[in-house]
Amino acid sequence: MNDAHHSQSSSPLLDHCPPSLPVEDYRDPAWHAAEERAIWRRHWIYVGRENALPPMTMRRISLAGQNLLLLRDGEGTVSAFHNTCRHRGAELCSVDEKKLRSRLIVCPYHQWSYSLTGDLVRTPFVSIPDDFRKEEHGLYHVPVQAWNGFLFVSLADAPPDFRDAPDLGDAALDNWPMADLVTGHVWVKELQCNWKIFWENYNECLHCPGIHPELSERVPVYARGYMAANEAPDWAPDTGQTLPALKAGARSWTVNGLACGPEFPDLSRAEREAGQTFVTLLPTMFIVAHVDYVRAVSLRPLGPERTELRAEWLFPAETLAAPGFDLANVVDFATLVMAQDGAACEMNQRGLQCDRFRQGTLMPQEFDVFRFQQWVRRQLPGGGMGQGSWVPVTHGDS
Amino acid sequence: MNDAHHSQSSSPLLDHCPPSLPVEDYRDPAWHAAEERAIWRRHWIYVGRENALPPMTMRRISLAGQNLLLLRDGEGTVSAFHNTCRHRGAELCSVDEKKLRSRLIVCPYHQWSYSLTGDLVRTPFVSIPDDFRKEEHGLYHVPVQAWNGFLFVSLADAPPDFRDAPDLGDAALDNWPMADLVTGHVWVKELQCNWKIFWENYNECLHCPGIHPELSERVPVYARGYMAANEAPDWAPDTGQTLPALKAGARSWTVNGLACGPEFPDLSRAEREAGQTFVTLLPTMFIVAHVDYVRAVSLRPLGPERTELRAEWLFPAETLAAPGFDLANVVDFATLVMAQDGAACEMNQRGLQCDRFRQGTLMPQEFDVFRFQQWVRRQLPGGGMGQGSWVPVTHGDS
Amino acid sequence: MNDAHHSQSSSPLLDHCPPSLPVEDYRDPAWHAAEERAIWRRHWIYVGRENALPPMTMRRISLAGQNLLLLRDGEGTVSAFHNTCRHRGAELCSVDEKKLRSRLIVCPYHQWSYSLTGDLVRTPFVSIPDDFRKEEHGLYHVPVQAWNGFLFVSLADAPPDFRDAPDLGDAALDNWPMADLVTGHVWVKELQCNWKIFWENYNECLHCPGIHPELSERVPVYARGYMAANEAPDWAPDTGQTLPALKAGARSWTVNGLACGPEFPDLSRAEREAGQTFVTLLPTMFIVAHVDYVRAVSLRPLGPERTELRAEWLFPAETLAAPGFDLANVVDFATLVMAQDGAACEMNQRGLQCDRFRQGTLMPQEFDVFRFQQWVRRQLPGGGMGQGSWVPVTHGDS
Repeated sequence: MNDAHHSQSSSPLLDHCPPSLPVEDYRDPAWHAAEERAIWRRHWIYVGRENALPPMTMRRISLAGQNLLLLRDGEGTVSAFHNTCRHRGAELCSVDEKKLRSRLIVCPYHQWSYSLTGDLVRTPFVSIPDDFRKEEHGLYHVPVQAWNGFLFVSLADAPPDFRDAPDLGDAALDNWPMADLVTGHVWVKELQCNWKIFWENYNECLHCPGIHPELSERVPVYARGYMAANEAPDWAPDTGQTLPALKAGARSWTVNGLACGPEFPDLSRAEREAGQTFVTLLPTMFIVAHVDYVRAVSLRPLGPERTELRAEWLFPAETLAAPGFDLANVVDFATLVMAQDGAACEMNQRGLQCDRFRQGTLMPQEFDVFRFQQWVRRQLPGGGMGQGSWVPVTHGDS
Repeated sequence: MNDAHHSQSSSPLLDHCPPSLPVEDYRDPAWHAAEERAIWRRHWIYVGRENALPPMTMRRISLAGQNLLLLRDGEGTVSAFHNTCRHRGAELCSVDEKKLRSRLIVCPYHQWSYSLTGDLVRTPFVSIPDDFRKEEHGLYHVPVQAWNGFLFVSLADAPPDFRDAPDLGDAALDNWPMADLVTGHVWVKELQCNWKIFWENYNECLHCPGIHPELSERVPVYARGYMAANEAPDWAPDTGQTLPALKAGARSWTVNGLACGPEFPDLSRAEREAGQTFVTLLPTMFIVAHVDYVRAVSLRPLGPERTELRAEWLFPAETLAAPGFDLANVVDFATLVMAQDGAACEMNQRGLQCDRFRQGTLMPQEFDVFRFQQWVRRQLPGGGMGQGSWVPVTHGDS
Repeated sequence: MNDAHHSQSSSPLLDHCPPSLPVEDYRDPAWHAAEERAIWRRHWIYVGRENALPPMTMRRISLAGQNLLLLRDGEGTVSAFHNTCRHRGAELCSVDEKKLRSRLIVCPYHQWSYSLTGDLVRTPFVSIPDDFRKEEHGLYHVPVQAWNGFLFVSLADAPPDFRDAPDLGDAALDNWPMADLVTGHVWVKELQCNWKIFWENYNECLHCPGIHPELSERVPVYARGYMAANEAPDWAPDTGQTLPALKAGARSWTVNGLACGPEFPDLSRAEREAGQTFVTLLPTMFIVAHVDYVRAVSLRPLGPERTELRAEWLFPAETLAAPGFDLANVVDFATLVMAQDGAACEMNQRGLQCDRFRQGTLMPQEFDVFRFQQWVRRQLPGGGMGQGSWVPVTHGDS
């Protein structure tokens, strides 16, 4: 999140040590419920790749305790609704994915049928009395947003404007053919930690030397505990050095360091030299774009101390189809890093079982942890909610 | 429940669309606890067949969070107590069923001994000081009621009068030899739904065409979404047609449609032609009597979103003993219907995970769902409790 | 706990029947949390044998919801801390036991390093701004106490003085070589009961004739429901009879009744004749010292209705090493007794599921149950807390 708040030509370090969030914020079920309402049921949340939802298909999705239906019609339009019939509340789609047989969503319980835009069309077998007006019994609509091939929904009455998101206009993924990439691998892991612990870990690299020896070897600034070269006291902005950058000779996050297929043709020289471009979309996901493939990592809170982590590796279709393509050489590298981060996050959560520890202390290098926590503070009642800030930013991370 | 509230010669349909119960009533643990107190610890609850409890036997029963002891003495009298010793509260019977070795209930912990009427008789090893009066330390008594071979208990301080139950006086089971029937099969299934969802499903047949194809073929009015013929606009009460009736040629709820043994000799012509007679005993059970056997289905709430369903098939002893008797031909039919209903109930419960859905809307054909919900509303504080209404009625169902 | 409150020359029996504790105290989660704070996070709690923690080793311990670190340095000094780094709260020791590689406790997350006395020494990679003072970021210290080879910690801000404990000065274990005994066997069992149920069972022997036939045969007064001979109406204090005593010919709690090795040389004649000497350390443990070995039994509440029971058998090293030593002959006897007590405790807990039972009634022989309950009442807010009573006493038990 090292963006407009500090220019890359000056040091991003904090000049003091602010307190971290109170320990209850990571453990208390009531606080977690408040965060679900203020953050997870309000911001745009990633729900899947656009090209993984074929036409005339619907999907069941669980998000922040809500049961949703995501569907694509025959023309390609994607919509979402609460997965709840308006008659007596039955679930409309009871499987993870189902083909639509007609241009109707039919409730399996009493066959109430809705158009693909959610209007109630038919109520078989029942007689309709005067006080029943079909137009008052449409499905509960959920807004959907597509961006770079990713689909997002918001459960807010008035969702934040996706296009107002800071930095989205010049987000660094424009040179990648994002919408065309296909999913080559998925890794899902349940972490025994609060979702904010994961983002705090993501937002600093002080842990890199100890937790990520392989990654620190690949990205030399990480071995010094920096997220980017401009944290160093001897940083000279006019060297033209790219931040952060893979070590000399390495092209990507692969086990052997080589690109796993053809490099994307439209990348800038800086993007190519950096070897990794991060985009952060709070609270739902981050994206790491390499010269040869892209990785998307998303979170789903399952409780105050449980979070589901999901990683998807995205490739050009030709790369996946190429003879000799070695998937393990790609996925094993980041899987190792994510497993290391996951274990560190769980270790952090376990240490919070201490009734004398009120809150931690952030160090100057944890400027992005601080920014993340300030963002969280703004979302919650009493913490200055209401500005709908949506934060996708270029970012250096672990 | 299509009884005195509407004559069978006029349409039972509602003339408007009332709201269903609020969604919290199906999910909130505090509300569920209130229902346990107001409904399940107050009304008469089915606890087993009379002839399944041999003389000099005691049984442990769990009911609405209470641990009970049901016993039959040597003369055949059935009693029930809280399964709790008055000394320090130990459980008196720690197994599901146990023979009584004497006319005493002996606590295994410190050997306090109670008569079979619950009086404290002996306290071995202890010296008794002046302030201890044995008559103040008897077991907590629980009233028991037997009806048609079924045993019921009530946890109320002042239980409703079983004999005051509406329609019980002329309940339709008088022509069946109910007390003599023996249990030939038991099927138990835990449903992931609130107990009221089950009763709502039971109280309408709009779902029959979609959920129960086999049953709808067997009972033709069900295929039209009716519970009984009198729901049809073209219903003529003077045809003498029985409601509801099995299709021509079918005699019973069996896979092949034939009676599984000799037909009960004392049934009326109408009972024989209908082929199925329903009696509903809210909130605990319903009974379906056929010409050849009887099925008893009872509920036990395990939590706001969990309910245990138990079905017992009751036969004349001779039917079970007859050469060539085919149990599967009997039980497979209703087991399929109940499994379909169970899946529908769970689908309904899952759809209630929606914070925009406040409550459903009942349709005119859901007159008995409405009556059930009105009954529930009357039981709860603020909803007009205190009339102790006990509702066994003849009924057409799913 | 038959100590100063009543001389052994007079009857300890109560002259009336006081009420037992309210049933909610054994089941309510909020009450249990209050007990955790007032009792389990305040008194000295047993955490392991001193000689089972080698120098330069640290251990992770869970106590009343707190995550602790117990360590011994190279000179043998034992310390304890909350297992929580002061930086962002990570767990310092993430395994049950770990060797210390240096005189530093190093947090695995960001390498903050603490001295073995808990001072923050190093914070690698970070720059230290003016407002950060290392001396304010030391580990949270937890006091440790060693007594007779047992280690105890207290989570209190101001722990009770271990040496002020009643009767500790003349505790009966002085004639046993307690610190030198080594652990020969450990038995752990999770009981489905409140921790107080266990102590109540421990504090009376009315249950012995019914629950412990083998033990009652070994200790004749137990067969009469007494904990000690002075409960008998015909007790004559001037007989010099030891209380309680094993039956003639039996030397110890072993299956065959014989000592399992050489008898401890320094026992008094009374200790040798009694054959069993009990010391109770509320709320954490009791110790039974025999002429040949010692058993230590400790409790850990896991929830309002779950308690972990742990027994350790302690022997002279020579006994364990002797050819022909038969461990099963020793441990099978007490394991049987503890399994019987555990089943009785669970039976007691199950009987408390009764909304008409408010509380039990104590009988005159339950004078030590009453004393235990009075102790509990004093610990809790509104019940007269603040005297920090620590209660190790000589005791006759089951």
